[in-house]
Amino acid sequence: MSDRILNASFRSKIMSADEAAALISSGAAIGSSGFTPAGAPKAVPVALAKRAAAAREAGEDFKVGVWTGASTGPSVDGAIAGAGAMSFRMPYQGDTNCRKGINSGEIDYVDMHLSHAAPFAAAGFLGKLDYAIIEIVGVTEDGRLIPSTSVGNNATWIDLADKVILEVNEFQTTDLEGMHDIYRPAMPPHRLPIPIVKPSDRIGEPCFRVDPKKVVAVVNTNASDICAPFTPADQTSQTIANNILEFLTHEVKKGRLPQNLLPLQSGVGNVANAVMAGLQHGAFEHLTAYTEVLQDGTLDLLLSGKLDCASTTSLTFSPEAQAKFLANSKALKSKIILRPQELSNNPELIRRMGLITMNALIEADIYGNVNSTHIQQGTAMMNGIGGSGDFARNAYISMFMTPSTAKGGAISCIMPMVTHVDHTEHDVHVLVTEQGLADLRGLSPKKRAKLIIENCAHPKFRPALQEYYDRALRLSPGKHTPHLLEEVYSFMPRWFAEHGEK
Amino acid sequence: MSDRILNASFRSKIMSADEAAALISSGAAIGSSGFTPAGAPKAVPVALAKRAAAAREAGEDFKVGVWTGASTGPSVDGAIAGAGAMSFRMPYQGDTNCRKGINSGEIDYVDMHLSHAAPFAAAGFLGKLDYAIIEIVGVTEDGRLIPSTSVGNNATWIDLADKVILEVNEFQTTDLEGMHDIYRPAMPPHRLPIPIVKPSDRIGEPCFRVDPKKVVAVVNTNASDICAPFTPADQTSQTIANNILEFLTHEVKKGRLPQNLLPLQSGVGNVANAVMAGLQHGAFEHLTAYTEVLQDGTLDLLLSGKLDCASTTSLTFSPEAQAKFLANSKALKSKIILRPQELSNNPELIRRMGLITMNALIEADIYGNVNSTHIQQGTAMMNGIGGSGDFARNAYISMFMTPSTAKGGAISCIMPMVTHVDHTEHDVHVLVTEQGLADLRGLSPKKRAKLIIENCAHPKFRPALQEYYDRALRLSPGKHTPHLLEEVYSFMPRWFAEHGEK
Repeated sequence: MSDRILNASFRSKIMSADEAAALISSGAAIGSSGFTPAGAPKAVPVALAKRAAAAREAGEDFKVGVWTGASTGPSVDGAIAGAGAMSFRMPYQGDTNCRKGINSGEIDYVDMHLSHAAPFAAAGFLGKLDYAIIEIVGVTEDGRLIPSTSVGNNATWIDLADKVILEVNEFQTTDLEGMHDIYRPAMPPHRLPIPIVKPSDRIGEPCFRVDPKKVVAVVNTNASDICAPFTPADQTSQTIANNILEFLTHEVKKGRLPQNLLPLQSGVGNVANAVMAGLQHGAFEHLTAYTEVLQDGTLDLLLSGKLDCASTTSLTFSPEAQAKFLANSKALKSKIILRPQELSNNPELIRRMGLITMNALIEADIYGNVNSTHIQQGTAMMNGIGGSGDFARNAYISMFMTPSTAKGGAISCIMPMVTHVDHTEHDVHVLVTEQGLADLRGLSPKKRAKLIIENCAHPKFRPALQEYYDRALRLSPGKHTPHLLEEVYSFMPRWFAEHGEK
Repeated sequence: MSDRILNASFRSKIMSADEAAALISSGAAIGSSGFTPAGAPKAVPVALAKRAAAAREAGEDFKVGVWTGASTGPSVDGAIAGAGAMSFRMPYQGDTNCRKGINSGEIDYVDMHLSHAAPFAAAGFLGKLDYAIIEIVGVTEDGRLIPSTSVGNNATWIDLADKVILEVNEFQTTDLEGMHDIYRPAMPPHRLPIPIVKPSDRIGEPCFRVDPKKVVAVVNTNASDICAPFTPADQTSQTIANNILEFLTHEVKKGRLPQNLLPLQSGVGNVANAVMAGLQHGAFEHLTAYTEVLQDGTLDLLLSGKLDCASTTSLTFSPEAQAKFLANSKALKSKIILRPQELSNNPELIRRMGLITMNALIEADIYGNVNSTHIQQGTAMMNGIGGSGDFARNAYISMFMTPSTAKGGAISCIMPMVTHVDHTEHDVHVLVTEQGLADLRGLSPKKRAKLIIENCAHPKFRPALQEYYDRALRLSPGKHTPHLLEEVYSFMPRWFAEHGEK
């Protein structure tokens, strides 16, 4: 197994996951790899959770803080939060156990714009980082680390941590070597322009560097990333995707977008995959992507020849796509670039290249404010804001998309006022549902409300929303953003009561 | 008077303000100079308003759309909105007449991040720009335009407009020539890194270029910018400023800021001036500023020798400071740089240089969300978000400051939930009132609430806020961001009812 570890000093530190986990003490802050389950460590956090559970059995408290790239899946968040061993978490999560801990009040969760995480930590604003646990593909002869299927904040965690634990995952293909472009911007006042002007530009090194003295353990693993299987787009997602594709075609016709569009960013999920599939059969050629997560749809678009290049910080493939990636990994080497999330999500680069961004939401309101994070009347965390703020605020065209209803049609995703704001009216150019598309660019709040109610709301909820808006316009003290605060959050229950639904 | 106009072709187009205004037809979109009243045109918009009033007398409708840098004062917004001749306004305003028109529903107002205005217009998202009305200091022999006391979006309006009307304001000093650094980033996909790495860097030209064929009128004026007189800091502002200065000193001591800090940005007003005055008598040397508005306090700091350089898009001086500026204009030439607002407010540059930002607010909530724009229960517009979003989102340390109460102590500026969100919890690092400072960096919502209530709220409102929070924590379905939506906006009236105040 150690043929992946070409440096003797690193070979001498090989140990079991349990032995590595035993090095970590309660109260430690741990920087973990993983941006989505891709590239997350598979063994040491599980061993750590086991250790914490044993400590708890013995009547001791054992908790750690966990800093990551983004979500990590069962081998990190699932295990540690599941063992009740997580005290602090940043900057994003998407795990059932972790969510439960956050919403019961046990875990302190700091939900952050993903581009901010690394520089914020490097500035010392989060305190000391004790350990980095990083999955890699191998160690070169001269002691450099070949990154795995995600980069996230790994370069920063390796630099900041007192001690580094490496998981060398033999399951990951060595063809990943050379796909990465590792570059850490200096901290102010020494930061220079980041010299990327198109998604295919490479500006860094293919490996991480680490001070070998900091490496305290090397653990061998052999396990695939635990990413969700692909589910084909349902009719709603397909219709949303079609609305987006029609809009892009219209913008090109109007001369507001070039023939090959501008670099695409798309969030995670069904709609994003459906958009990519649509582009595969569409008229646009020589597309590029500059995004944080590369999923099945984007992989197919690359293989189809329509997409020239994709820059990302994570390869989040379903098992099927993973097989397709492995079968084509050599050919894909020149088309995929994996970067640190400080670059994949960097406002400087997003604004410079003029991205077309597509992100999902939980609820939007009639004025275009978006809630991407909170459920249960704005009090409980779903996942986190992730990169959506980085992309939306700096996009050339910022689109948000959602089915018009949730819970099998029982709830409108268009509400009078969102229960939590993650993206303000200023950052939402286009809102898309399966009902239609509202192009909000250059419109005052009242004109936005008209379009959103007419084009995006489900017909079932449209009359109630319109009635609220009309009444607010009549009774509101100010007519710029008409609202009736005394009833704004009781809108839907009231509507249900009047219409006999629940 | 025309010794300011050294080019014959421009001299041949001299006419009166009334004659120039007569060229503009109803329905036109006008790009006006002005970022604050500084550099706003003084004559043509007033003549246009007169013309509109006459048209109305004659039973005709006469309305125009107005695009600016930011606010403009009485000679633009005051006059045009006062004549009921404004149909559309972007991206910021601060005028009584204009505000009245917006909040009565007559004027469509698009409140935008100020860095977005120019590229958004250049992308064609706002439609066609018919006229630019730009105040300048003079015309060079070869037909280039010497900018005035603000740059704002002038370079973009001149490029985009079909026709250009120039006001040559003899009141403004010719020493302004050479202070400006005009650079327009290309539009994607052709945009390159903006090569500014410190506030003193110059990357462009000192003048605007214009196609002489587009210039349809040149109007001579002689009038000062109509900026508000300086009011000395009251005790509350002084205490807020002291809290900020103490925090900065602490950050330097902790090694999280360099000895000469990082480039400072401060919003408009009393507290900002008080911070600058405090720095003048403090220990920090070789400071720099990278900001959108340069006010009295910053001028004094420049003259004191503590501030090496200030980059801005506007010189917004009180009459007293204006005199001081004129008396020192030659010496200040190497220390002040005036840039387009697309650069003064550019996220790429703000994040690269790592700004310390200080912005005012209308209300904040216990979780750190900020309302900068809306009054009257979130329904009426005060001014606009301005540059605060550009700065706060990309700052090294983002501070927001406010007195803890408004309306003579009757209203708490710290509320359970803001009535409108302009800056989300993700973008507020430090909240400061005269009561104290809450350092929110790296804290979960619950820990933020504790600090904000204890450190920032006025003692008179603290028990009610604490009681709301405690009850929300107990009764809230999710414990990540505890709230009770059914009462959240009735909080203050209820509190007043219980305590017998109004």
